Amino acid sequence: MMDKGLLVVISGPSGAGKGTVYQRVIERTGMKRSVSVTTRKPRPGEVEGINYFFRSEEEYQQMIAAGEFLETAEVYKNYYGTPKAPVYENLDKGNDVLFEVDVHGARSIKKQYPEAVTIFLMTPDFKTLEARLRGRGTESEDSLKTRLGAAKRELGKYEMFDYIVFNDTVDRAVDEVIDIIRAEKRRIKNNISVIKGLLSE
Amino acid sequence: MMDKGLLVVISGPSGAGKGTVYQRVIERTGMKRSVSVTTRKPRPGEVEGINYFFRSEEEYQQMIAAGEFLETAEVYKNYYGTPKAPVYENLDKGNDVLFEVDVHGARSIKKQYPEAVTIFLMTPDFKTLEARLRGRGTESEDSLKTRLGAAKRELGKYEMFDYIVFNDTVDRAVDEVIDIIRAEKRRIKNNISVIKGLLSE
Repeated sequence: MMDKGLLVVISGPSGAGKGTVYQRVIERTGMKRSVSVTTRKPRPGEVEGINYFFRSEEEYQQMIAAGEFLETAEVYKNYYGTPKAPVYENLDKGNDVLFEVDVHGARSIKKQYPEAVTIFLMTPDFKTLEARLRGRGTESEDSLKTRLGAAKRELGKYEMFDYIVFNDTVDRAVDEVIDIIRAEKRRIKNNISVIKGLLSE
Repeated sequence: MMDKGLLVVISGPSGAGKGTVYQRVIERTGMKRSVSVTTRKPRPGEVEGINYFFRSEEEYQQMIAAGEFLETAEVYKNYYGTPKAPVYENLDKGNDVLFEVDVHGARSIKKQYPEAVTIFLMTPDFKTLEARLRGRGTESEDSLKTRLGAAKRELGKYEMFDYIVFNDTVDRAVDEVIDIIRAEKRRIKNNISVIKGLLSE
């Protein structure tokens, strides 16, 4: 008897360092990553089922209509989405699955799968967030303002998240995400099968 | 601005190793321990306010009547109880407080302080629990049966706990308790002041 795996979501504003923390947590824990479906064309070297599931826009729209996504978003006229089926298969096998999505995606996942563990990754303050976005060297003043405004609105939705981790150093943030995952494995609700097994000894 | 400290309770059946895990977690984290009130006479070397608060039975009964305890129990005609005031003072200062109590005490604490984080410490199975109780060499066959029956009833109340930790090796159990404490520090509800501070920047 085994309980289901955990679905863990790392979210937070653009510039908080979600991608780096996500990669490191995957490397250290061996958690499964979810493979997204996209309508954009494969780039050289990208492999179907590894990098993405590549679908036509028509196929994608059919998947939306059939309710096959945990979350879906349009970015520069291409669609990106997380298909439910492979995620649920992994969870049923007892595998933990890690996501890195924006706050919009996190809300969508939590709505469809309320057992999801949602972590808001944030810089220690907004000044640091601004500095990091500036450091990219790719943001205009206008886009910077837009991003900072969005970040504040996103943090304002803190109540939809279970945890907040401050990314002051990547190592510490990764440690804290892993602490959270380990603790969640110990939650009573994630051990009901084991407990019932012991009680029926 | 700072959020309150955590009240963390390690509970579980007799023989699961609560005392050892509690001591090690205190040593590694520097968490505050709560000092109990008791009606038993001080033993040589015991210091008022360090080992216990020593009170007469009359004083103790007055404290019960005034609702001054988080939990109280009678053991061999002496009373032992946890006074609320020093615990709440520590929590308000942002200090985390760790308890080691039986399941009865854990329920009482959770009832009076629902924010308490309750951890059920259990052996990997009941056979191991039996072996550990036998290993003490102090239990008669009758008392052994009584304790095992009690342990099963206690695990049956798993729904009142937040977490379960299996004490297969002490080091691992201590690590897992510390994972839980660290993760709880990152819960949104324990960071509301910090988040509101950021939002008002």
